[in-house]
Amino acid sequence: MPDRPDTPLLDQVHVPADLKRLSDAQLHQVADELRAETISAVSVTGGHLGAGLGVVELTVALHAVFDAPKDKLIWDVSHQCYPHKILTGRRDRIRTLRQEGGLSGFTKRSESPYDPFGAAHSSTSISAALGFAVARDLGGMAEGGLGDAIAVIGDGSMSAGMAFEAMNNAGHLKKRLIVMLNDNEMSIAPPVGALSNYLTRLYAGEPFQEFKAAAKGAVSLLPEPFREGAKRAKEMLKGMAVGGTLFEELGFSYVGPIDGHDLDQLLPVLRTVKARATGPILIHVLTKKGKGYGPAERARDRGHATAKFDVITGEQKKAPSNAPSYTSVFGKALVDEAARDDKICAVTAAMPDGTGLNLFAERYPSRCFDVGIAEQHGVTFSAGLAAGGLKPFCAMYSTFLQRGYDQVVHDVAIQRLPVRFAIDRAGLVGADGATHAGSYDIAFLTNLPGMVVMAAADEAELVHMVATAAAHDDGPIAFRYPRGEGVGVDLPECGVPLEIGKGRVLREGARVAILSFGTRLQEVMQASENLAAKGISPTVADARFAKPLDENLILDLAQNHEALITIEEGAIGGFGSHVAQLLAENGVFDSGLKFRSMVLPDIFIDQASPAAMYDVAGLNTPDIEAKVLEVLGIATIGEKRA
Amino acid sequence: MPDRPDTPLLDQVHVPADLKRLSDAQLHQVADELRAETISAVSVTGGHLGAGLGVVELTVALHAVFDAPKDKLIWDVSHQCYPHKILTGRRDRIRTLRQEGGLSGFTKRSESPYDPFGAAHSSTSISAALGFAVARDLGGMAEGGLGDAIAVIGDGSMSAGMAFEAMNNAGHLKKRLIVMLNDNEMSIAPPVGALSNYLTRLYAGEPFQEFKAAAKGAVSLLPEPFREGAKRAKEMLKGMAVGGTLFEELGFSYVGPIDGHDLDQLLPVLRTVKARATGPILIHVLTKKGKGYGPAERARDRGHATAKFDVITGEQKKAPSNAPSYTSVFGKALVDEAARDDKICAVTAAMPDGTGLNLFAERYPSRCFDVGIAEQHGVTFSAGLAAGGLKPFCAMYSTFLQRGYDQVVHDVAIQRLPVRFAIDRAGLVGADGATHAGSYDIAFLTNLPGMVVMAAADEAELVHMVATAAAHDDGPIAFRYPRGEGVGVDLPECGVPLEIGKGRVLREGARVAILSFGTRLQEVMQASENLAAKGISPTVADARFAKPLDENLILDLAQNHEALITIEEGAIGGFGSHVAQLLAENGVFDSGLKFRSMVLPDIFIDQASPAAMYDVAGLNTPDIEAKVLEVLGIATIGEKRA
Repeated sequence: MPDRPDTPLLDQVHVPADLKRLSDAQLHQVADELRAETISAVSVTGGHLGAGLGVVELTVALHAVFDAPKDKLIWDVSHQCYPHKILTGRRDRIRTLRQEGGLSGFTKRSESPYDPFGAAHSSTSISAALGFAVARDLGGMAEGGLGDAIAVIGDGSMSAGMAFEAMNNAGHLKKRLIVMLNDNEMSIAPPVGALSNYLTRLYAGEPFQEFKAAAKGAVSLLPEPFREGAKRAKEMLKGMAVGGTLFEELGFSYVGPIDGHDLDQLLPVLRTVKARATGPILIHVLTKKGKGYGPAERARDRGHATAKFDVITGEQKKAPSNAPSYTSVFGKALVDEAARDDKICAVTAAMPDGTGLNLFAERYPSRCFDVGIAEQHGVTFSAGLAAGGLKPFCAMYSTFLQRGYDQVVHDVAIQRLPVRFAIDRAGLVGADGATHAGSYDIAFLTNLPGMVVMAAADEAELVHMVATAAAHDDGPIAFRYPRGEGVGVDLPECGVPLEIGKGRVLREGARVAILSFGTRLQEVMQASENLAAKGISPTVADARFAKPLDENLILDLAQNHEALITIEEGAIGGFGSHVAQLLAENGVFDSGLKFRSMVLPDIFIDQASPAAMYDVAGLNTPDIEAKVLEVLGIATIGEKRA
Repeated sequence: MPDRPDTPLLDQVHVPADLKRLSDAQLHQVADELRAETISAVSVTGGHLGAGLGVVELTVALHAVFDAPKDKLIWDVSHQCYPHKILTGRRDRIRTLRQEGGLSGFTKRSESPYDPFGAAHSSTSISAALGFAVARDLGGMAEGGLGDAIAVIGDGSMSAGMAFEAMNNAGHLKKRLIVMLNDNEMSIAPPVGALSNYLTRLYAGEPFQEFKAAAKGAVSLLPEPFREGAKRAKEMLKGMAVGGTLFEELGFSYVGPIDGHDLDQLLPVLRTVKARATGPILIHVLTKKGKGYGPAERARDRGHATAKFDVITGEQKKAPSNAPSYTSVFGKALVDEAARDDKICAVTAAMPDGTGLNLFAERYPSRCFDVGIAEQHGVTFSAGLAAGGLKPFCAMYSTFLQRGYDQVVHDVAIQRLPVRFAIDRAGLVGADGATHAGSYDIAFLTNLPGMVVMAAADEAELVHMVATAAAHDDGPIAFRYPRGEGVGVDLPECGVPLEIGKGRVLREGARVAILSFGTRLQEVMQASENLAAKGISPTVADARFAKPLDENLILDLAQNHEALITIEEGAIGGFGSHVAQLLAENGVFDSGLKFRSMVLPDIFIDQASPAAMYDVAGLNTPDIEAKVLEVLGIATIGEKRA
């Protein structure tokens, strides 16, 4: 455990109101102490570091000027909220971040009144803030309950269409609403797209350094920083904007750009805005992700997400890995396929590293497209690529694909275009918690006509599924795989396309058949071995495909066993539901079949270790054993209707 | 049947290439004839009229200048494609528009090589066109297979974030790509939002009429329209834009605005763009929805969608209606609830009329929010309103709600915010076909923890469900109802909140129980009566709730009948799947229960009359009767496993 930093002033701040008793000079010190505390906390928990360090001064300034929780401070994505949590009564638990039973790594309404709106996916903050602003003006909460609505949104998040939709609506409604554009030129990866270039142009031509120096000088000479701050902000409003900015064209007042690490700029500007703003206003703040911590500033991803680390050296303490991650196996397999087929191309929505496409981008830059945080566009762009004769792999996390669902339905499935969906982070994800769990993709993809849906039981299977997707040109195909390391099987030299809609039997047994779809196969095999030791020897099959179903295999298993159990890492409505429909339609239930479908439970599961989360979900080896015993009537639990 | 218009020149145009043999003067006449033919065709089929009339000249100009199908012409939404269909070899079937077995009312890849990308929801065209542009430059299709990619998108569609995402990406990739912004200041309803104001400002200050007159004069004086056209377009590029437009800031060249009904402007500009464009270019075209047909021009919705009509008078020939539409019943019920509770507010995404919120907007303008075509924002904005203490009803069609799915999961369900989803057009929709069918909402909502999901069996039930939603403050709630008229039951004076998760038994019978969720209840009752005449008397229940399930009712029905049949107007994964899971978990299948789940089939069903579509879906009265007989082993069909 590293020594805690010395934080005499921060120790006096228990709630944001405590900041109001401090001078501006003292706020500088609070910011420094807050930065040290943030680094110290993340060094023992791991988590999102760079984003929080980039907004330390902004967090102090916002809480010093505004009145949370009456004023609603909404952090976009909210992985930058650790300093905010420290200042809002959660410092005592800050070293439980992202741990089971601890603080969430994101803002969360149920955790604190200072988190008025939870987040985890990007670009929602302006919409939510506009909701609060409208509710305030319509008297939504009891007197005094609702003050200002302030969205803090990064430049990367601004590239998502949703942010544009919200600004378009806010500019129309003209409610008082404050948007802090936290422009760090870096979301997870460097941002792409024309908007990013535009933002750079917005201040590239400006004598920013001179302005900054002059402003500092001016402020230091003045006895009444508030009033002078007001004057400066007003000047900026008038003079700094390069003509009519894009934001002004959408109906926002525009202030900036200002240095987001300089409290002498932040405080007067925010005070002026608080005192004067009438309609929607955008404050353009320049920050550096990872600011103030050398190892983060020097890292390629600016310390976006780290394991536990040594504060002095910055060295991360990662557990030794036993097998390559599914992500990297996918990335390498796709590069291999692309070497054999120049029609293969790849699409990511701002996640080249997270999806493993960085390797592909390096090898085939002209065939790899990072569309920005823009899943709707990313899916339809992929459909266009497919219609144009290419073989696009659209690589998105399961939860992010939810953002492009309608496009999957309309532009891909209805048109039967051969887009290949590589769905990473399918299932439970550990420390990122409920918001990042990929629970619904099986359900929302399997009910689309013509869609092929696969899940990889191990990393070798994933290689074959990449090959299967590459070879499948008759309509869309999707394959899902989990976060984390593979199970350690040998990887094939080269992927071999699987027969569409065919599963495989891994273990011939009797009485009960367990039909697994995807990642719980290892646990199923282990449970079967444990049961075999007790005299029950289940048949185990890997369905490989949730769509089309291997009807022969399933009906055969049903006919030759007294019980059939399906298991998948997804919610009701997916694989097990399609199997049940098949069994029902074929009259299999009529004469009695002990059928059970193990799925994710009907709850949002909070962050914990993956193993702990599987325990909560009831999808671990002991759960499978218990289910077999229950269905065979050997155990007493669950026998509600003997 | 009205007389067909006289169309001597149009009769010579069988494919777009035929236009190339005509002079510009002759193209004017073709446009006039095309307009007359479009009006004539829609007068006998009904359908989207105004949008097509607004792009008659644009359609002629695009096909006269570009080389479809090598050049890919992509119509956004594509309800404006009737003139395009007439010019691209489908004139002989144009009077089968939207009829069973006839032409689709939208572009459709399977219908014609001139439809490179189908559409029906808005704002996808730029993404798709960018896909084609990239595929072209990467050699996606065999030599000569891919030329220019041209997206035609309305100003309303431009307000959706997806269009912004696509422009942001296109501006970054810098591929040659042509976007025609068809600015008619009217999507279905008048457009809302800051972008719309911006577009108006773009040309409001311009001497458009003078420019138009001057341009016309200039062109008429010039012997070489192509070269001069080039000069003019270049001047426009330089001079007409009001400073740097929003589009230029996103990396597009900007041309315009030009008069979209004036071929003397359209043709030279398009020819110049074709000859010179290198990167992405946006051509801003001003048009009038309904142009050239008095009754449409005068209509409030500019003839957006019409029934069959008399060409001379414009009078629509609607079948007499037996009952109010579900849409209007919802609209009125919400107004009634709002009169009793000033916290109730409403959100629509550019569909105030379609959702029935026009009445609410009229009565409570400050509590009704049209956010534009922006479902992602609309859902999260609703979540913000709910977090701010209001009671938002987020009214969206089932298919459009797919656009905001991730926001439903994250911003509403995970936070358990009491947003009320009013889901219109749930189920099959008739002439609009597969793209507008609301097939998936039951599945994608029922698997979200804490979500309450209801379906109205008739219009009186809908009134009670509006009241139920208004009263339900503990988390999100959704209720779905179909397109079209109610079944004709008496409406209650006032809605009465239903008990959450409780169904109702409508008919006590024996042997088989039919458990209906939503709109097929009438057919179930009819089937039961028909069966009763044959000596089989099913029990009939209306589940009302797909979530939470009425477990007692369902287990009771299962225990007291030899067969249980569920029926719903939705795909696998919804109500029937949740019932199956309940039965499985309770061991009901173990000792034999004849279970069947009637759902929408695993196909996209083309447009037809609703009755015909239900036949295809197998959800009509005879299908229900057959299912009962099959499950009881009385008929021989379906007995695959006796």
